[in-house]
Amino acid sequence: MARPEVTSVSLQAIQEPVRHELERVFAELGRIIRADFPLIGDVNRHLMAIRGKMFRPTLALLSARAADHLAHRSVTLAATIELIHLATLIHDDSVDHSVLRRGQPTVNAMFSHQVAVIMGDYLYSRAIVELVELNDLEPLRVMSRVTTEMTVGEMREIEAHDILDFTLEDYDRLIDAKTASLMSGACEVGVIGADPALREPMRRFGRALGMAFQVVDDLLDYTSSQEVTGKPAGLDLREHKITLPLIAALPEMDPEERGRVVRLMADPEPAQDDVAEVIRTVERRGGIAAARARAQEFALGAEGELAALPPSPAREALRDCVTYVVQRRR
Amino acid sequence: MARPEVTSVSLQAIQEPVRHELERVFAELGRIIRADFPLIGDVNRHLMAIRGKMFRPTLALLSARAADHLAHRSVTLAATIELIHLATLIHDDSVDHSVLRRGQPTVNAMFSHQVAVIMGDYLYSRAIVELVELNDLEPLRVMSRVTTEMTVGEMREIEAHDILDFTLEDYDRLIDAKTASLMSGACEVGVIGADPALREPMRRFGRALGMAFQVVDDLLDYTSSQEVTGKPAGLDLREHKITLPLIAALPEMDPEERGRVVRLMADPEPAQDDVAEVIRTVERRGGIAAARARAQEFALGAEGELAALPPSPAREALRDCVTYVVQRRR
Repeated sequence: MARPEVTSVSLQAIQEPVRHELERVFAELGRIIRADFPLIGDVNRHLMAIRGKMFRPTLALLSARAADHLAHRSVTLAATIELIHLATLIHDDSVDHSVLRRGQPTVNAMFSHQVAVIMGDYLYSRAIVELVELNDLEPLRVMSRVTTEMTVGEMREIEAHDILDFTLEDYDRLIDAKTASLMSGACEVGVIGADPALREPMRRFGRALGMAFQVVDDLLDYTSSQEVTGKPAGLDLREHKITLPLIAALPEMDPEERGRVVRLMADPEPAQDDVAEVIRTVERRGGIAAARARAQEFALGAEGELAALPPSPAREALRDCVTYVVQRRR
Repeated sequence: MARPEVTSVSLQAIQEPVRHELERVFAELGRIIRADFPLIGDVNRHLMAIRGKMFRPTLALLSARAADHLAHRSVTLAATIELIHLATLIHDDSVDHSVLRRGQPTVNAMFSHQVAVIMGDYLYSRAIVELVELNDLEPLRVMSRVTTEMTVGEMREIEAHDILDFTLEDYDRLIDAKTASLMSGACEVGVIGADPALREPMRRFGRALGMAFQVVDDLLDYTSSQEVTGKPAGLDLREHKITLPLIAALPEMDPEERGRVVRLMADPEPAQDDVAEVIRTVERRGGIAAARARAQEFALGAEGELAALPPSPAREALRDCVTYVVQRRR
């Protein structure tokens, strides 16, 4: 059995086969979100400053390269995927009233909820405009379904606060919609126009990768500290978000432990001690281990799909993406 | 000179040439926004209850009919235009913290800001999915540009609070982006596929109509009462929104009157008496009359564009839309 977490992979190394194109994605993003009045300019400078590691554009570009189909339009496609990702982050932060994202103030915190709502709408609309300009309905078909799925996921998430009713199946459906769908879309649009037989496996690759990504994200909330992740540990619990470690540990808990979880979920502002206690219980009852195993499972599933691609440095980089997702510490 | 405001036109009469298709738009809306989990269902029932007079779908359908191009897809197009309109209203209400819309509670008031943000995103994404399914890039091109323009307009609106800096030109640009663009898009997509020479005049028709529509809307805020419009009079002033009656009256005011306006604009919660006083000053200084004249001007411009269409009952209905917009009292 593969053990991707023992290998060390840097994102920089992964991005090497598409380094030149990623630089053009940066330029393209700058071009797309430049606007003719002050506030959008301010917000955009802020966005460019807090933008992430461009993981989703990397997936789209590597998929295109691995399918021997990297073209000029791949750069625009990759940029629109990042725009949609940014739009989603901004609305998520606004909906969650988050004040920090990757250790930086969020748009709603730095400007206002108003600006965050409008800015997200603007970025999403701009992404659609760019996709239309490519004169191909296929990427639009994929991306509009993805964004619909993401909003449905968001809606599910705000409904999901009843710990006793939230099953593993609900969790899978939720992370599929809110995280895996976009990574799946990134990988799929990367190979549009190449051998049609590649679309389905690349969609599945992105989906499995995204599932692993979110499981690890949820794990890190239990195992990591603010210095590393840029957000306080146990934040999900404090916000009553029910994730895999808790779901997996719950059936193994005794009634007293379970009672503590239920009380924490009912407490509008749980004390840090109560959060820390539940984190320890989840670990003791095997929740962390179960989530790690699940991430591994998704990672193996993702790796398996790569057999559809011919051997190439880009395919190896996609394999390294799997390792990167599973081993990441932030 | 035409005096549309002396004629009485009912929306029902206007909608007669496309009555059957409008019923199908209702059914189509129901189909599109039906979702498989409880909260979206609740919100949608609420939306269907507060949905408006379907003015924008009516424009799209009448334009298609007048261009002799009313087809099955016209119904879907009209429905997506209403979806985009609904998405915009929901986000606007959330951004403005409005609690009432047409006398009914807003989504943010009835559910939460979270639900409003996500619901708007969902409706917009669903609209794009439906447009993609029509397998024609042209409506997508028009509508994605329209929505981008609308978000830019929204951003301009929250920046526009400096009464001394806000010119008539700024106002035109703002209402063009936030209102006229969508009506323009509705009329333009209605004739896509018909004689290409119709697109430009219908786009201009919708734009002029939308400008008249928003000027009248802003007028009504000065002249109407809560019982008629479903929102309190002087709401724009209370929210420091600078609209045409005020812009037109300002140069005619004496220093004392102008000082009162500046103080009201600086007051976070202006008293009803102060609002009423400024409303009276605006009327006395000709702001209402100037805005009425401007609405008339846009209305005449809109009517002029209709010469591009062959004579038909649908063209007459579009002419009646102009009358309806100028004479409406809510």
